[in-house]
Amino acid sequence: MQVNGQALRPLRELPGGERIEVIDQRSLPHRLHMRPLGSPREVFVAIREMWVRGAPLIGAVAAYGLAMQARRDAADDAMRNTAHFLKGARPTAVNLAWALDRLLAEVLPRPVPARAEAAWAAAAALAEEDVAVNAAIGRHGLALIEAIAARKQERGDSGPVNVLTHCNAGWLATVDWGTATSPIYQAHAAGLPVHVWVDETRPRNQGASLTAWELGQAGVPHTVIADNAGGHLMQHGRVDLCFVGCDRVAANGDACNKIGTYLKALAARDNGVPFYVCMPTSTLDLSLPEGVHGIPIEERSGREVTHISGRTAAGEVVELQLTPDGSAAANPGFDVTPARLVTALITERGLVAAEEVALRALMETRR
Amino acid sequence: MQVNGQALRPLRELPGGERIEVIDQRSLPHRLHMRPLGSPREVFVAIREMWVRGAPLIGAVAAYGLAMQARRDAADDAMRNTAHFLKGARPTAVNLAWALDRLLAEVLPRPVPARAEAAWAAAAALAEEDVAVNAAIGRHGLALIEAIAARKQERGDSGPVNVLTHCNAGWLATVDWGTATSPIYQAHAAGLPVHVWVDETRPRNQGASLTAWELGQAGVPHTVIADNAGGHLMQHGRVDLCFVGCDRVAANGDACNKIGTYLKALAARDNGVPFYVCMPTSTLDLSLPEGVHGIPIEERSGREVTHISGRTAAGEVVELQLTPDGSAAANPGFDVTPARLVTALITERGLVAAEEVALRALMETRR
Repeated sequence: MQVNGQALRPLRELPGGERIEVIDQRSLPHRLHMRPLGSPREVFVAIREMWVRGAPLIGAVAAYGLAMQARRDAADDAMRNTAHFLKGARPTAVNLAWALDRLLAEVLPRPVPARAEAAWAAAAALAEEDVAVNAAIGRHGLALIEAIAARKQERGDSGPVNVLTHCNAGWLATVDWGTATSPIYQAHAAGLPVHVWVDETRPRNQGASLTAWELGQAGVPHTVIADNAGGHLMQHGRVDLCFVGCDRVAANGDACNKIGTYLKALAARDNGVPFYVCMPTSTLDLSLPEGVHGIPIEERSGREVTHISGRTAAGEVVELQLTPDGSAAANPGFDVTPARLVTALITERGLVAAEEVALRALMETRR
Repeated sequence: MQVNGQALRPLRELPGGERIEVIDQRSLPHRLHMRPLGSPREVFVAIREMWVRGAPLIGAVAAYGLAMQARRDAADDAMRNTAHFLKGARPTAVNLAWALDRLLAEVLPRPVPARAEAAWAAAAALAEEDVAVNAAIGRHGLALIEAIAARKQERGDSGPVNVLTHCNAGWLATVDWGTATSPIYQAHAAGLPVHVWVDETRPRNQGASLTAWELGQAGVPHTVIADNAGGHLMQHGRVDLCFVGCDRVAANGDACNKIGTYLKALAARDNGVPFYVCMPTSTLDLSLPEGVHGIPIEERSGREVTHISGRTAAGEVVELQLTPDGSAAANPGFDVTPARLVTALITERGLVAAEEVALRALMETRR
């Protein structure tokens, strides 16, 4: 996507084929910092500390991390150990394991001397594939926006299509396009009037700091709201549909995403607002029969709740304490939206019902 | 309640009977500042700028503001104009109008020279009555906590009763005890094991800054969570019941409270968690048949969403920008929880169903 009129991705290869560069998302929206990553350990830290985040991007960055290992020691044990190590960086997103397992499957059958090149090429292919997957999700989601725009026009409503999104499932969370934002960017490019309600997304504020920044750079009209506000807006007809991303979807269609997604899905159901989960099929975990109890939920540091960072009037980025001394905080990073609340999953292969038979059929018929 | 071992209220009369002193709640939890208020205009600013907030406290402070007017010019026109002026400070809480109308009804029948003393006495009586009302709400709520504690003990669960609350309906929001916190303080005093999940409550963070501070001062175990986390905790059996306050309740039982309350009520319903609204009967507005469309919702400044204040490591309280330059924010201050999601209202007269016949009966039989 474009930043200050220049094409930019959150992940790019550096010349020489041994290192990558990523946007350090911790300093957005106040600073745009790129950071080089040159070893599996650096990749691990970048994922764990959330310099990069978003299930698809984590997968792609981890794949490059494993390719960096192949440049050092591409023996079976070394590769498997590094894959295991990288999988431990974050527990919830299944794309991390998916990408690493795919890279191993691609590389380990080859002779050791050929593995380094093959691994790097496989990581690059995986990243490019993510771009194509997200573009396809965007096309399928665009059709939903078009249908609502047409209905609004028919009844003489000249307002935009109002989309609510939670967290950042934007291009920063992927290699390009984003998942939940892809239909929005495509609608905007097609000249459809679209407006986005951006959930702030506490505690790390990925909505207020990343999604708002992305949309602003792309010129998409948007309004930041507290996470508390979405139910009220839906009650009053001010949301036409919801698009969210996901970190793991179980075989029954239960969708794990950033904490708070479940609350928006409940409000959408209570108010007849369609609630779509944008899911690259790499995020589907058919090994888990259900999600509410089956998907491991990362418990992150309470400091993300008790403290916050932002920009002073003087332009300095600083951290503040919000809570009284002595008050503890809990910080589950994700929640699981039961499949019954999901209108449909939007995949690169089209829309699919959030239920096991449909999901298995989707994966089998077109593999 | 106690602060640093000293009894403190958020509102007290200053010697001389012409001024009051309030806690400036904007600087909590980092500083405890008291501020004197000596005129209706000062009272208006203190309410509008949220030095004081919380429906019951707003009512009591406004009553003193009108009593200050009576000391200056107690003629009918002057009193009515000042009451009208003060009602405009905040639009949502009905206690503001309730308290001012009650003071007018008390004072205007008297001869003008007697009004100043009568008004001051009426404001003081209204404040004391709030304390008694909240103590009674606490006793009725305590019985609910006791019942859950007994059930837990029966099934061998040695954990505390886990209460979730949203925003601050604590003693800082009232003259003393609080509404939603009153059962909690009484349970803690009675030696029942109770633990409170404190919703941070964006955008003004009244949970993280006020409720957490209150509970900490009182020694009540509590954990601050992002507003996004409550649904996940309920899904996993970690919330036994919810207590929230309210700013206005319509005749049908629809309950207006801080933005985000509706989302927690939806999650409570989805998970079979009882959801109680603690309501002094002064917060009931029988003139409104329903709340979702009938209760005016204050739209506050977007700056409360785009900026946040907190304490630096050096102890300075500063304000930070969270969003990118150019991203707008919307900030509805309240939402309305439909009566169908409310298990019961807890009033000073006991529990009552959130429906019109029950509410009218409650108000008529015991007036």
